[in-house]
Amino acid sequence: MKINGTPTRTIWPAKDGWAVEIIDQTRLPHELVNVRLESLADAAHAIKAMLVRGAPLIGATAAYGMALAARANSSDLALTVAYNILHATRPTAINLKWALDQMITALGKVPEDQRMAAAYARAAEICDEDVAINSAIGDNGATLIQAAWESARARGADRVNVLTHCNAGWLATVDWGTAIAPIYKAHDAGIPVHVWVDETRPRNQGASLTARELNWHGVPHTVIADNTGGHLMQHGMVDLCIVGTDRVTSNGDVCNKIGTYLKALAAKDNAVPFYVALPSPTIDWSVADGIKEIPIEERDATEQTHMTGKAADGSIVSVQVTPDGSPAGNWGFDVTPARLVSGLITERGICAASPEGLRGLFPERNG
Amino acid sequence: MKINGTPTRTIWPAKDGWAVEIIDQTRLPHELVNVRLESLADAAHAIKAMLVRGAPLIGATAAYGMALAARANSSDLALTVAYNILHATRPTAINLKWALDQMITALGKVPEDQRMAAAYARAAEICDEDVAINSAIGDNGATLIQAAWESARARGADRVNVLTHCNAGWLATVDWGTAIAPIYKAHDAGIPVHVWVDETRPRNQGASLTARELNWHGVPHTVIADNTGGHLMQHGMVDLCIVGTDRVTSNGDVCNKIGTYLKALAAKDNAVPFYVALPSPTIDWSVADGIKEIPIEERDATEQTHMTGKAADGSIVSVQVTPDGSPAGNWGFDVTPARLVSGLITERGICAASPEGLRGLFPERNG
Repeated sequence: MKINGTPTRTIWPAKDGWAVEIIDQTRLPHELVNVRLESLADAAHAIKAMLVRGAPLIGATAAYGMALAARANSSDLALTVAYNILHATRPTAINLKWALDQMITALGKVPEDQRMAAAYARAAEICDEDVAINSAIGDNGATLIQAAWESARARGADRVNVLTHCNAGWLATVDWGTAIAPIYKAHDAGIPVHVWVDETRPRNQGASLTARELNWHGVPHTVIADNTGGHLMQHGMVDLCIVGTDRVTSNGDVCNKIGTYLKALAAKDNAVPFYVALPSPTIDWSVADGIKEIPIEERDATEQTHMTGKAADGSIVSVQVTPDGSPAGNWGFDVTPARLVSGLITERGICAASPEGLRGLFPERNG
Repeated sequence: MKINGTPTRTIWPAKDGWAVEIIDQTRLPHELVNVRLESLADAAHAIKAMLVRGAPLIGATAAYGMALAARANSSDLALTVAYNILHATRPTAINLKWALDQMITALGKVPEDQRMAAAYARAAEICDEDVAINSAIGDNGATLIQAAWESARARGADRVNVLTHCNAGWLATVDWGTAIAPIYKAHDAGIPVHVWVDETRPRNQGASLTARELNWHGVPHTVIADNTGGHLMQHGMVDLCIVGTDRVTSNGDVCNKIGTYLKALAAKDNAVPFYVALPSPTIDWSVADGIKEIPIEERDATEQTHMTGKAADGSIVSVQVTPDGSPAGNWGFDVTPARLVSGLITERGICAASPEGLRGLFPERNG
């Protein structure tokens, strides 16, 4: 998407044709700093230190990490070492392993002296495939925003209001994003879309990343406390909710950033449509009941007790917001039961959040 | 309640018998600083600059402000001026006007040379009345925690978990608090109560004030993001919710800090009892439908875009958490419909959140 008018991805080949550049997301939202990756070690560090985050972008960075490794040494042994180093950076990221396996398969097919070229080509393809999937999610989801806008306009509204939680935008992918892709498509098509951006405590991905990218691209938006969405829905100020997800079960239950469930409850209580956008690999066909079966990660309490921002002098400062001695709890995700989800927006189309809905869109999973 | 073992109120007469002392709540949670009020001007400043906050404590401070004014000059004219100065500090605070009217009534009954003594006596009474009301709320609400604990213990639990939102503790009153009073009563009676403290963005009253006072008194607690409660309720980790309120309608609708409604929805969805604690003057008998009739205050966006805390060097710093140029919205309250409220805890007892329930407990309002 655009940064102040310039189309930008989260990862791209440098002008010299061999290095790779990324946006250092640890510096957002207050600073835009691009970082040049020149080696396997650089790529591994970028993933591990979360200069890049978001499953699709982690996968893309790992793919380029293999290309940088192959440029230095494309022997079987060197590539196996590279695979292991990259895989260890974020061991629970499914896309990471998928991308690395894709690279090994591609490189295994060609002689050693062609591996470097094949690696760069496959890494570029992985990026383009991610962009194509997200663009299709955007096209499919934009039809919902278009319909909501027509309905809002008929009631005399001058904009259509979409609420989102956390960051499922282009900064989490190579481009477009998942939940935000329909918003970009609608905005670019001239629909007057305004986004309510949940702050998303404790890590503030909404206030820092979603607001940042909507601001760059020029999409009207307002940052709100996570507490606010229910009030807005009670007063007809939300036409549609769209969120991303980390895992969807075969039942249609949705595991996403903590707090998603509360917004889904409010949407149901106020008859506001609640949609979840996802690339199809996010569906975990091996799990049915999300609440009973998905373990929820407990993260470091300092994410809750401390907050980082820009001080008056421009410096980036971390401050403690709780009293000394008060413990904090930090669960990263929650599960929204399928009964609260209006539909799932995928690259293939939109389906009901149910076993039947999912199998209708993915018939290869039947039988 | 206790601060490190010492029973403390939020406002008390100084040892010299004429000045008044308060806790400067703008310095919480990181510093405990008592401030001495020696004049009408000191009292007015303490209210206006929010060194004291919470409706009952504002009223008590205004009452002592009238006593300090009478000490300097107890003429009709001087007391009228004092009334107007104090009333202008927080013009929408109902308790403020109530306390000032109480003082004017008491002082109007006695000759000028007895007014100072009468003023100190009535101010002390207003404080003691607040403490008595809150203590009764605590006794009534503690029965619910006792019952929840017995039920939890029967299931093999080693504690009873109460979730609260915002700060309705002793720091908002003269002592005990409203929603937290039952927790103190239960804790002091030996019930192993643990409190989930919602951070309460954007002003963080949970993370800063509720955590601070529970920590001082020694009540086990854990600060959580406002996003977390739904997940905890889905997993049986909340036995009871108790929150305070700014206004209850004759229908039983509850206006309280933004985000309360989301927790009430989650409680209903998971069959967790959801109670609201209030002194009876909080009931607004002139309003029926809270969502339609109660206007919700929009506050300064900087409360959302900035956050204050303690930096690594111990200094108190305000940091910006949103990107430059991203607007923020800041609604202060929301309305929880009576259908989501299990009951109202008052100084007279517990009643259903319904016209019948309220009129049963307050029969003088019938007919």
